[in-house]
Amino acid sequence: MEHGAPSGGERGRFVTFEGGDGVGKSTQVRLLAKKLTDLGLKVKITREPGGDEVGEKIRAVLKSSPGLDPLCEVLLLFAARRENFIRRVLPPLEEGRWVVCDRFYDSSLVYQGILKGISGEDIMLLKRLVMGDFEPDLTIVLDMAAETSAKRLSERNSSDEYDGMNIERHQQIRKGFQKIAEIFSFRAALVKADGSEAAVASRIWKILEKRLGSFLISSP
Amino acid sequence: MEHGAPSGGERGRFVTFEGGDGVGKSTQVRLLAKKLTDLGLKVKITREPGGDEVGEKIRAVLKSSPGLDPLCEVLLLFAARRENFIRRVLPPLEEGRWVVCDRFYDSSLVYQGILKGISGEDIMLLKRLVMGDFEPDLTIVLDMAAETSAKRLSERNSSDEYDGMNIERHQQIRKGFQKIAEIFSFRAALVKADGSEAAVASRIWKILEKRLGSFLISSP
Repeated sequence: MEHGAPSGGERGRFVTFEGGDGVGKSTQVRLLAKKLTDLGLKVKITREPGGDEVGEKIRAVLKSSPGLDPLCEVLLLFAARRENFIRRVLPPLEEGRWVVCDRFYDSSLVYQGILKGISGEDIMLLKRLVMGDFEPDLTIVLDMAAETSAKRLSERNSSDEYDGMNIERHQQIRKGFQKIAEIFSFRAALVKADGSEAAVASRIWKILEKRLGSFLISSP
Repeated sequence: MEHGAPSGGERGRFVTFEGGDGVGKSTQVRLLAKKLTDLGLKVKITREPGGDEVGEKIRAVLKSSPGLDPLCEVLLLFAARRENFIRRVLPPLEEGRWVVCDRFYDSSLVYQGILKGISGEDIMLLKRLVMGDFEPDLTIVLDMAAETSAKRLSERNSSDEYDGMNIERHQQIRKGFQKIAEIFSFRAALVKADGSEAAVASRIWKILEKRLGSFLISSP
């Protein structure tokens, strides 16, 4: 089936969420999945790193190994990505389901690339190894002031790797994701992530309707 | 320092052991390390996958995930390899120590390449990503009849992934490593692994003396 084939087709659509920690990705993943389900579409949610059993084990290795070599880290992330891709992304898409994924390879371009110095070329080489030319149909890049995401993150008091990051780091990550949205504009859109959950969800929905509206009619 | 510089130099030598399961690699690794130590050289032993803390965690993921996608497996192995390489191989070599390693990237060429269908090109691409042009100074490829290694392995009753392999698989692995010895003849040597431990150790030592003899004089 053609990538851009009209609605009701055999293949589902793949939507990824990107952005720094604290911008509200997982909330918006859930809200979008609910909205799509309410429209009668079949939807699967997954996340990176993790998603399946092996992915969660790899996630545990990453979380328990501070100071990991960045190249080792990116290899582990792409190993988890591969498993997630072939087990939790491709099969539902082929069954006509939509898949909404919390983080995808863009996160490696920002965290291991821009922040930790692995070249974009090396990351894209791993990307091609793991999934060939496959790309998301839509990438929502959530964007907010570094001060806001840093504040939200400290309030959440999560055990995330990226805890205790300073504002400067939040700014660097924000700029990285803005660049992603620019470079991959054919599939990515920058969305203001300030305001209520409902307000952000509504912004996301407008973009989704515009970009993937023809796929919103559910299969009979 | 030049790779082929004479003895007493700053950099140690790197010797890897390859071959199927049951051919006696770990025994010969120990015997060679002892012999080198007895000569007054400083020696470190390591193994793949594993060697360091992260490597052992990755090894545990590999062992606890039967039916893992081969590409995920090779990415995990190269992640472990990277950590082993930068923490347990390079630093001692730079301090003038010899490093003896039980398995290195040749094992991926055989197990994930020949046996599981990952292309040699993709594996070499990962190899270059992880260690650039670095190569072992000597690779001992232990070779024995498939029937013998299979019998030894079943006697050992190990919990290794490769338990219960049939003779045909042992033959395939043997041929794979023979090919490795041929392709990488500039660094690799095929050694008959039948007979007593001492007999095999003696064959290995003859090759080492021939290929790396000038490095056997210890630093003052």
